[in-house]
Formats: sequence, C-alpha cells, structure tokens
Amino acid sequence: MRRVYSSDFLCNEVTKLLMDVPEVVVNRLPQYVRALRQILEDGSEIVSSQLLGQTLQMTPAQIRKDLSYFGRFGKQGRGYNVRYLVTELQDILQLDHEWNIAVVGVGRLGRAIISYPGFSPEGFKVIAAFDSDSRQVGQSIGGLIVQPMDELADTVRQKGIQIGIVAVPAAQASDVVERITSCGIRAILNYAPVNPLVPPEVKVRNIDPVLSLQSMTYYLRSGDTGSTSN
Amino acid sequence: MRRVYSSDFLCNEVTKLLMDVPEVVVNRLPQYVRALRQILEDGSEIVSSQLLGQTLQMTPAQIRKDLSYFGRFGKQGRGYNVRYLVTELQDILQLDHEWNIAVVGVGRLGRAIISYPGFSPEGFKVIAAFDSDSRQVGQSIGGLIVQPMDELADTVRQKGIQIGIVAVPAAQASDVVERITSCGIRAILNYAPVNPLVPPEVKVRNIDPVLSLQSMTYYLRSGDTGSTSN
Repeated sequence: MRRVYSSDFLCNEVTKLLMDVPEVVVNRLPQYVRALRQILEDGSEIVSSQLLGQTLQMTPAQIRKDLSYFGRFGKQGRGYNVRYLVTELQDILQLDHEWNIAVVGVGRLGRAIISYPGFSPEGFKVIAAFDSDSRQVGQSIGGLIVQPMDELADTVRQKGIQIGIVAVPAAQASDVVERITSCGIRAILNYAPVNPLVPPEVKVRNIDPVLSLQSMTYYLRSGDTGSTSN
Repeated sequence: MRRVYSSDFLCNEVTKLLMDVPEVVVNRLPQYVRALRQILEDGSEIVSSQLLGQTLQMTPAQIRKDLSYFGRFGKQGRGYNVRYLVTELQDILQLDHEWNIAVVGVGRLGRAIISYPGFSPEGFKVIAAFDSDSRQVGQSIGGLIVQPMDELADTVRQKGIQIGIVAVPAAQASDVVERITSCGIRAILNYAPVNPLVPPEVKVRNIDPVLSLQSMTYYLRSGDTGSTSN
C-alpha cells in the first residue's frame, strides 16, 4: 500500500521532530556553524569530529550525538563534509532568513546595540527603536527615529518584527517583556539583569556579564589558603 | 582512633569535592543567588523549590538536584531558608570577595564595559585598561589611564588582577587571550565573536549576542508554511 501524506502533515511532523531536540543542543548549533565557517575559510572541505571537538572544546562523542538529532551528516571514519554540514545547520537554524528586530530602551546600552556592526551581516536587522521616555522619542539613532511605546504593537505588525531586544533598566524589564510578548513576538534578547517570566512559546536569551563573571569566580580558588598545619 | 587532618589537607579535599560539580550546575548558581536575593527583598524568609522553580523557569526536581551537590539546604516539605541559602551560595561562588579586572581593548565596546555601572556593586572592579593601539594609550577612560599591552604582565602581578575582559576585534582575540592567560589569569570574559582556545585550568565565558539570536531563530517556525495538500 502506498501512503500519501499532505505537505501540511509532513511539515507538522518535521516541526514536531525538531521541537524534540533538547534546547541545550540547539544552543550549541550556532557555535558549530561559526566553527565550520572558519574551517571552510581556512581551506578544509572535510573535518573530523576530533578536530571540530578541539575547536569547540567538546568531546567528539558529544558532537556526533548533537548532530545525530538532525540526521546522518558523516560516514564513520570519513569525517564531515564541511560545506554540506554548514549549509544544513544554517538551514536548520533558519540563518538564511532575514530577521527584523525592535530595540526597546535607547540609553547607553540600547544605543550601542543599535550601532553594533555584528548583527546585520548575519541577517539581523534592527529596524525600530522604542523608549518610554518622551525626551528620547523622536531622536534619530543610527538612522532610526525613536518611537513611543504605544506604537509598539502597530509597528511590530506592520514591519513584521519577529525579535525584541530589551535594553531597559531592571525595574522596567518585566513590563517591557510583557508588552513585547503581547505583540506576538516570540524571541527576546534581554540585556536587563533580571530573569523575565514568559509564556512557554516565547524564547528568552539573557545577556548578563555579571552572571557570567559570577560563574567563574567559583573556580578562582587559590590552593594556598591554609597556612596552619598540625 | 581519632584522626587529625591538616587544614591544607581539608582545603584540598573541599576543593576536590567542589571541582566535581558539573560546570552547567555552577553556571546556574548565580541565577539562584539573584532570584533568592529578590525573594528576600520581597519579604519572604522561606521558599519552596516549586516557587523557586517558577521564578527560574526550572523544575523543582532540577533545583533540588543542583543544590544537593553542596549539602542539605532544606528539609523535605519545609522549603528553603532563603537567607541561609543565599549566604551559602554566595560563599560557594566567592561572591563576597572583591575581584580585580583588566579590560583589553578600549574601542566603543571596551569603553562601554569600563563605564558599566553593574559590575562594581557586585564586587567586580575594573582597575586597568589596555590597548595595542598607541593612539589609545595614555587616554583617560572612566578614571583609568589606558596602558600599552607590554605593561600587562607587570600590572596583573602588581595589582592582583584575577579576571580579564576581552573587547578586541575577532582577528586579535586569540592573541590577546593567549597573552592574558600567560600572565596567570584564569578567568576570561570574552566579547569577541570567536571561541578562544585556552588551557584546561582557564575558564572562559563568551558574550555574543549573535549566537544568542541564532539559537532562537530555530524556534521561529511559522506553522502555516505548507499551503498545498493532496
């Protein structure tokens, strides 16, 4: 018996499969892409999981396991075809798309984000800026006119904004995150030093240098603290 | 028989035990501390793993497991004593210390880092700034005089610098990381969009907004892509 599947059905099945990938694995994929692009630039077409592991400071077994979620990319003992793997991973992560971003908060941090040259080459376009401070509204920053918060929902819809960047002080962050998600945005990059609560369908990545520093001081134990012995 | 242990011995044993904690657990502890401080500020002295889980968007089981690496902090069904737990975790992470930081690279990003008001209240003191560009050397930024790179080793030793922040372009990052680690620094916060190779005793945390964005676009699949069905 030959079965026929509708494209809707297949699309849903693929989506379900992709959703089963642990988030920690998904979070590593961008690093794979960057390492593979570098390897390609350096002139290699084939890479072993050993070499990729060295570059990423991971074990080859971990790399093989991570990639196995997405299909068979390499043959045992033959290594990975770099060009193919990077294309597939870019496709999985949807890096070939252009993504429209709104920045909320145009203080020193927000301004630095709007002017950051690293986003655009990767397809991340900051196309709107908002602030609740009426003294900021109307100002031009990096070619964008700062808009008042009550224009957020309309602008998100009209301009097809899919990602929000939060660059407001901690005290305002939860409110801003709620306003952003109520506009239907499902991806938030949060620079405020808080852990905002969001509905399960919304992804948040927090950028917080203090938390990063605090996770390293744990390891800064000097071996020479005890001076008495008996 | 009564055994007597030297403090050196005990210190080494404690260090060994602490080193066995998975790094992913250590990385979560600063978030626990922040959440617990907030709970304390809000006036609660006792917190359940359920409530803590809601705040951190983790399961209660995960929280209990994470904390169990460090001893018994709560009684079954009684919840955690917030004040005690936060003090213990701060102690484990050595957050009561002051940490001296050198920033390398004083472009737009480096200047923003030096002026960032969030470090100092948490005990992270940026006390030196370096740049390889002679036009930057000698300038005053946030009260620091930018020093040339060849003063790095001496300054690290003289001023007791334990943490390096890398804010140079990608092309220079590996060299800078190598110079920093060769001065004996074992904790690096890296803002350059590369994954630097370091010896196993050195910890690196990368801050890279592009990687964070790229790990979210994976989830931005619209359910309405397929339009043909048969």
